Order: sequence, then structure tokens, then C-alpha cells
Amino acid sequence: MITSVNNPSVKNVIALRKKGKLRREQDVFLVEGPKMVAEIPDGYLKEMYISEEFDIEQHKMLLKGRAYELVSARVFREMSDTQSPQGVLAVVRQRHSTLEGLLAAQKSHILILEDVQDPGNLGTMFRTGEGAGVTGVVLSKGCVDLYNPKVIRSTMGSVYRVPFVYTEDLHKTIQRIKKSCKIYAAHLQGVYDYDKADYTDDSAILIGNESKGLTKETAEMADIWVKIPMQGRVESLNAAVAASILMYEVYRQRR
Amino acid sequence: MITSVNNPSVKNVIALRKKGKLRREQDVFLVEGPKMVAEIPDGYLKEMYISEEFDIEQHKMLLKGRAYELVSARVFREMSDTQSPQGVLAVVRQRHSTLEGLLAAQKSHILILEDVQDPGNLGTMFRTGEGAGVTGVVLSKGCVDLYNPKVIRSTMGSVYRVPFVYTEDLHKTIQRIKKSCKIYAAHLQGVYDYDKADYTDDSAILIGNESKGLTKETAEMADIWVKIPMQGRVESLNAAVAASILMYEVYRQRR
Repeated sequence: MITSVNNPSVKNVIALRKKGKLRREQDVFLVEGPKMVAEIPDGYLKEMYISEEFDIEQHKMLLKGRAYELVSARVFREMSDTQSPQGVLAVVRQRHSTLEGLLAAQKSHILILEDVQDPGNLGTMFRTGEGAGVTGVVLSKGCVDLYNPKVIRSTMGSVYRVPFVYTEDLHKTIQRIKKSCKIYAAHLQGVYDYDKADYTDDSAILIGNESKGLTKETAEMADIWVKIPMQGRVESLNAAVAASILMYEVYRQRR
Repeated sequence: MITSVNNPSVKNVIALRKKGKLRREQDVFLVEGPKMVAEIPDGYLKEMYISEEFDIEQHKMLLKGRAYELVSARVFREMSDTQSPQGVLAVVRQRHSTLEGLLAAQKSHILILEDVQDPGNLGTMFRTGEGAGVTGVVLSKGCVDLYNPKVIRSTMGSVYRVPFVYTEDLHKTIQRIKKSCKIYAAHLQGVYDYDKADYTDDSAILIGNESKGLTKETAEMADIWVKIPMQGRVESLNAAVAASILMYEVYRQRR
């Protein structure tokens, strides 16, 4: 059992939790809790750590006979990103998709995110996106790091399953997507109410930053601006909510 | 200018920030930031505090000539609930609605929440709810305190405008609502897909706790269970997202 926070593996996990650069260099990310650990796809688990306080017998099914290191409760608390650690965490290999791979789906349903900053919003978009049958997510380099532990938590496992790419050049990427998909920008000055557009063909939805929305340049690349109508004095919806309403409208029209 | 954290008004604000009981006793809550302060309805502002660092000239329109106390930057940081204080905060009188008032709307669109625990979720439901034309929100006593500063922040001002009631006896309240509204429970075992139900008459939507969903007893009081279909391996959606998709479907059918 590891009992010191100076153990090199423990020190590495603590550094991985905090540093996106290190996660990129080592090509890994961290997940916590029995549910997230159980859903790690085969071949992607690199290291697993279990607290001495964790009920291993009760979670045998979840652990699937995978190898792990036992650590003391005190050390585990240092490794964990949460205030109430769940007793199991893992270092997982990053997945890599290509834009062409994303666009190879039989009927594309792409989510394009420009500078989405809030970890909870990004994670929630992945979670809802999987539910709504999104075939891939494109993230501008100004988006929050998907492998940030807070984002990972709010994906509830969808991070393993929804293909995504970060792009250095969002406009060039949108140009490419435009060759095979109709591009809908969620925009407060939208011409159509979102449910009046037709998403039954290959579609991509553009969602902008939480406070600034889409940049003018990006919005202008869309084929159609759609708006979510709002009553009362609401100026905008939460970005994850807006994305969710649009993704579920696409799915509703395709069912 | 107030320069001491021992000033009684300052001490009271700090206590109000932390203690729901005190907010209830004094019948007030706290709001922060120029936008939230500007939207305080007439007659509801009790006290306003402005940091010496706040640009009063630039925000003159927002302050509407209302009276305020100037406080030192250091004291303001102690009063604020946020890591990057925005320089203005206010003590606001709580609004009080009745269930009969909520049900007096011409066409009811009620959101009923059972034990919603996450402050961000509750605030987001109010924000989306106002946008979707919700006529009132009913909260079980097990829900998080709406006047928690984190909830207030995520309502983005909707807390001032969406009528709501907390109920000590959720089941009795649902019985009353059932006399004039059809009750739809968001449920993973829903019989209908959510968009196959008809919400054009008076409707109320039941949303349960983030991890446990609706209790059996509460779910059984509904007229119809509706489900949001999910692809992939998603087990459930975020509670605020699920509520938002349902509320916007009601609004879509009524437009």
C-alpha cells in the first residue's frame, strides 16, 4: 500500500490533476469514482488507484479484475479532485479522433463550440450530446480543456464515447464541415425560431462563448441563424441549455 | 465610507450570505453585480453597498439614483460571495407568492421540483423557465434554498420575475394543482416520449432529485409519465437540461 504523497506515481497523479500541459504530454487524463472507472473502454486504462477505505468486495463487478494500487486514505485525499473522494481513480489514455472520422457518420449531427469556457457547461454538452445522438464535437482552441477534471465529471462517461477534435483554425474547420453539412448558428438575432429549421439532413450546430456568444466572423460562416425564442426579460439561456434544446430538436426531427 | 468588517451592517451582510435561517428571519436575500442590482424591482431594494473601486459614473444608469453605502475594497471582498467581486451588492426583500396566485395564470405552465439539490441547476431552471414562459415554480421543502447566493447568480435575474412557492407538503400541493392542471412526470420509465404528449392545456411538469429522480410516491401522482429518449449509453440527463427540454417543448407546442 502506498502511504506517502512523495511516491512518484502519486506525485504524478496530483500534477496531472492540475496541469493540462502534462496531461497532453503524457496523453492521459484522470477519472474518479466507481461509475467513471467502470466505463473506461478496454485498452484505455493505464493506472488505477484505490483507497484503503474503498469497499472493493462490493465493487468487484465494476473493477472487472483490472489491476490497481492500494493507497492510504490520506494519500487518496491528496490525489482526488473532489471534496468527498469516492475511493477510486484512474489514469486513462486520451482518445484521438480526426475531423474526417467525425464527418464519416451516416447522418452527421455535429456540435461546433467556439470558446466555451465553463467546465460544467462543456461536460453537460457532451452528456446531452451523446443522448441526442451527436456524431461528433468540434472545439475551438479557446474552449476549456475537455480533460479538466471538472469537465470529465460532468460528462458522466460521455467523454469516452462522443468523438471530438480540437481545432487550431476554427474557420478552416468550419469550411471543411460546410462541404457536407448545413451549418446552423445559435444566435440571439436568429432569423428562424430553432424549431422552424429542418435538421433532417447532415447538420452542424454552432454554439458560442457563455458571455460573448459567437464571434461575428464565425457566425457569418453559418448557413442559417436560428434563435430560441424567450419570454419575459431573459436575455439569453445558459450555453449548455441552449445547446441541449437545439440538439434535442435535431433528434426530435430525426426520430 | 465603511472601512471595518466589524461595522454592524457589514457583519449582517456576511451572515446573510452564509445563513439561510437568517435570510428567512429578516425576509431578505443578497444579490451581486451591476446586472442583478439594476434589475431589482421597485420597492424591493433594502440596502445597497458599493466598493470604493467601483466605477459609479459608468454605472449611473444602473443605479437609478438609489441610495447606497460606500465600503472599502477590503471590506467589500469580505462581503462578496464571489472570487472576483463586481463592486456592487444589495440586500433585497423576498417576494411571496401563493399557490392560488401561481394557478391563476390564464394557461398554467408549472414546474414542480422535488428535492433538487444543486444550486446551479435550480438557478438555471428559473432562468430557462422564465424564457419558456413558466407561470410558476413549486419547490418541495427538500430543495436547495432558492436564496442561496449561488442559486441567485445562476437565475440571472429570473428570481425577481418567476413566481414560486416552497411547500411543506408536496403531495397535498400536487393534489391541489391536479384539480386544474395535467401533471407530467419526467421519468426514465416514461410511457410516452416527451414530445408525444400534449401540453397545450394547463400543464405541470414534475422534476426529481439529481441522483435519485422522483420518489415513487410523487411519480405515482402524475397523470402521465414522459421520457426523454436517449441514445448511446447515457443513463440520464442533467436535471436542469431535462427540465429545460420539457419546458421548451411545452412552449413550442403553445407557440
